[in-house]
Amino acid sequence: MTGIPPVVLDRASGTALSVQLADALRAAAAGGALRPGDRLPSTRELAAALRVSRTVTSAAYDQLLAEGWAGGRRGVGTFVLGAVPSTPAAPRPGRGPGAPAPALVDLRAGSPCLEVLDRAAWRRAWRAAGDQPPDLRPDPAGDPAFRAAVGDHLLRHRGLVAGPDDVLATAGTSAAVGEVARILPPGSRVAVEDPGYSRAVAALRDAGIEVVPVPVDDDGLVVDALPGGLAAVYCTPAHQFPTGRRMSAARRLALVTRARAEGWWVLEDDYDGELRFDVAPLPLLGALGPDVVVHLGTSSKILSPTLGVGWLVAPAPLRADLLARRTATAIRPARAGQRVLAALAASGDLARHLRRLRREMAGRREQVRAAVAAAGCVAEGDPAGAHLVVQLADPATEEAVRADAARRGLALDGLGRHHQGNGPDRRAGLVLGFAAPTRAELDRALPVLTAVLRAAGRGSGEHEHQPGQRDGQSQPQQHPERTAPAPSVGPQP
Amino acid sequence: MTGIPPVVLDRASGTALSVQLADALRAAAAGGALRPGDRLPSTRELAAALRVSRTVTSAAYDQLLAEGWAGGRRGVGTFVLGAVPSTPAAPRPGRGPGAPAPALVDLRAGSPCLEVLDRAAWRRAWRAAGDQPPDLRPDPAGDPAFRAAVGDHLLRHRGLVAGPDDVLATAGTSAAVGEVARILPPGSRVAVEDPGYSRAVAALRDAGIEVVPVPVDDDGLVVDALPGGLAAVYCTPAHQFPTGRRMSAARRLALVTRARAEGWWVLEDDYDGELRFDVAPLPLLGALGPDVVVHLGTSSKILSPTLGVGWLVAPAPLRADLLARRTATAIRPARAGQRVLAALAASGDLARHLRRLRREMAGRREQVRAAVAAAGCVAEGDPAGAHLVVQLADPATEEAVRADAARRGLALDGLGRHHQGNGPDRRAGLVLGFAAPTRAELDRALPVLTAVLRAAGRGSGEHEHQPGQRDGQSQPQQHPERTAPAPSVGPQP
Repeated sequence: MTGIPPVVLDRASGTALSVQLADALRAAAAGGALRPGDRLPSTRELAAALRVSRTVTSAAYDQLLAEGWAGGRRGVGTFVLGAVPSTPAAPRPGRGPGAPAPALVDLRAGSPCLEVLDRAAWRRAWRAAGDQPPDLRPDPAGDPAFRAAVGDHLLRHRGLVAGPDDVLATAGTSAAVGEVARILPPGSRVAVEDPGYSRAVAALRDAGIEVVPVPVDDDGLVVDALPGGLAAVYCTPAHQFPTGRRMSAARRLALVTRARAEGWWVLEDDYDGELRFDVAPLPLLGALGPDVVVHLGTSSKILSPTLGVGWLVAPAPLRADLLARRTATAIRPARAGQRVLAALAASGDLARHLRRLRREMAGRREQVRAAVAAAGCVAEGDPAGAHLVVQLADPATEEAVRADAARRGLALDGLGRHHQGNGPDRRAGLVLGFAAPTRAELDRALPVLTAVLRAAGRGSGEHEHQPGQRDGQSQPQQHPERTAPAPSVGPQP
Repeated sequence: MTGIPPVVLDRASGTALSVQLADALRAAAAGGALRPGDRLPSTRELAAALRVSRTVTSAAYDQLLAEGWAGGRRGVGTFVLGAVPSTPAAPRPGRGPGAPAPALVDLRAGSPCLEVLDRAAWRRAWRAAGDQPPDLRPDPAGDPAFRAAVGDHLLRHRGLVAGPDDVLATAGTSAAVGEVARILPPGSRVAVEDPGYSRAVAALRDAGIEVVPVPVDDDGLVVDALPGGLAAVYCTPAHQFPTGRRMSAARRLALVTRARAEGWWVLEDDYDGELRFDVAPLPLLGALGPDVVVHLGTSSKILSPTLGVGWLVAPAPLRADLLARRTATAIRPARAGQRVLAALAASGDLARHLRRLRREMAGRREQVRAAVAAAGCVAEGDPAGAHLVVQLADPATEEAVRADAARRGLALDGLGRHHQGNGPDRRAGLVLGFAAPTRAELDRALPVLTAVLRAAGRGSGEHEHQPGQRDGQSQPQQHPERTAPAPSVGPQP
């Protein structure tokens, strides 16, 4: 372990001590006092040495970890990592040959973009939340100001009319899926998209639900492939996860019509619905079928999972069942994050943040598409959200690309693991998330991504893949994004 | 609805707008501009009129509602209630004869004492929490600073040695009980105390657990009455809920010994373990049996359910299973409240608050005991926590007392509903919580409580009840609290 670096903190300054400390440590690294591989003192040691609380040192380390400047693991320690090398890194001293380098840039999907989050607005919101009195007996539906803010948000950004009483606060999408699953009759079957969001599938199984995988194509969930005897269908119509397609209007109508006819619920997971870069979005399922649809949203992708806050708009009888369960068990979403989100909405900071985020994600998306194209591959997905998909020849290629990338310090997510099984429809490829890295990290990572894809192309043959015919459907491709050449596995040299 | 009352807010003041607004409304009532029964403008209308955000008006109304100054229901409106009359209130205009008055003072157990919570400390903690950067991919175990703070708290206040890695953050006790229940094998049987904490029982049932009620006596859970074939036992050893007794040292050892021998887990719910007014507490089950005990704590009773934060200390294999489930489902406790609690602990404000709270609860407990004694009844329970128990002759008397109290504006909780069934061991009585009301409310409520109990005594005969012999046990009563005369149902005139 390196000694305690020289740090001077100004307690009279308006800058948080943790921010000052992170700045000082970065400066120490820039000045050579700390070098890559150096082990930092523990948060406890540093707190004692600087006479600050561990909250301060932990926050500073968290920031440095989030930036990728430091890396570490509980019990082992925190190490200075420094910048990601733009060329493959030489093995570090003390590291066995061939061992993967630490994942310095993480291109997996599902995390938010902290870089565009205005930290001053974030602080203001916490302050405003703290100005409110603590609750004695909180309403199990959630904080009233939060529910009103969600109603405004849904109207403004998603075209869904929902008053505060139509909204329930949730502890996030998975928790909400679990809640709904637990008020279904025992032994219920719920259809899910395949490939699909594995956490929701796990939440359903965790609630004792029998999960029925149903294929997706370029128009989203294949409604005709839904079996009978369902209690509910879980889907991601705005931006199918992971394929990145939106559900067509015809499918939306068919889904809601069948739900009504057969008496099941539709769980509409609108996880990144606020991020759409082209045309006006199609009507939400929640707007087409307010009597049969449970609309689910979350702040985890657009702000931070720190808040642990989501929302749900559901028909009144289902809402009543959910509230009855919350009251009986006292299991209900925490209010602290609800208050922060309500304050962000009330100040207008949330709307400003979403504008910035949309701009940033649209720009990054183009950057990733270009990097993938530079390797002769095609990045698929509608102009929306914070991820793109690159299809690859087969699971072996997917695995090879991910391993190669890991060796070069790039964490990539495989497409295959988003399938439920190993059937013939199983796709192989990459799901490229671009929200989590900083701009600088992305700039460093994308040439590596191009190189990795290019190397994979040299290592494998070509492979003709025809999306949209997987499930026997053959629809005209009207969307400009969909006229891209069918992705070939391995780049064209 | 009354018009918008004249309110002048000083935006340059250091006092939060919501606090200024609540003050102004109280002043308007004192000056006669608002009178009991007046309907207040909606938070939206008032926000528009005063040009403040709805967060401000909602917070002000929440405060007034929490104080019992205003009452209301979503969709109907918020009404000025004014002070609780110390004599039975005459029916209000517009209210049918015999209809219960609004419950102006709530003596039910389970809520915290907001009155001794230092609002400046609360604000500081939220501010400190907001100074920390948002999380990108939060550790499913919880915020590291929070877990370290819980470790310190457990060592200082509960004599349990737990490092940050031994602690998991939870979303509160019920949520934690549910989490543990879901990693038990399907069809597991879990024993619970009868009478016991109904929310935990509901959380277990919700997870598909078969719940087995087991009697309690003055020494807590009757360990000898536990059947075989269990997966776990849930209990409240520090302060049995609702009877208010602590589990004897012999029972604690017997419980842990049997858990080891028979291979089940013990869930130790330490919901108000910080509140002990006499001797040093007995060793925690978690200290006696760290290999078999899941120790559960919460901030909901000592601070506010707003935080939605609890903690769990469990053997490593069980912790690993819990973390695996959290990772797979992405269902995990929100971090916002964890950060606030960690900040309260780091500043020393939590320790100060607990000292104040302990003093306050000890004083209130004596006040309630005196009010019950003035009616010739006995308030039972160890010198701990924030509730006392008065046993009554039978369910009919319990119901009559509760109904009479409700007519006089007092919300009381029956003892009977904390039993699982209607067996011959079912107790009748009251569970009197004294944390939630303000001091002024308690001062007004206790004479009403005395009067209600006295009236019940006149209406029913005497009844000899012998606690401690319920389950065939007859232990010497060594504790001073336990030498009180056996409670007679109905007071002695």
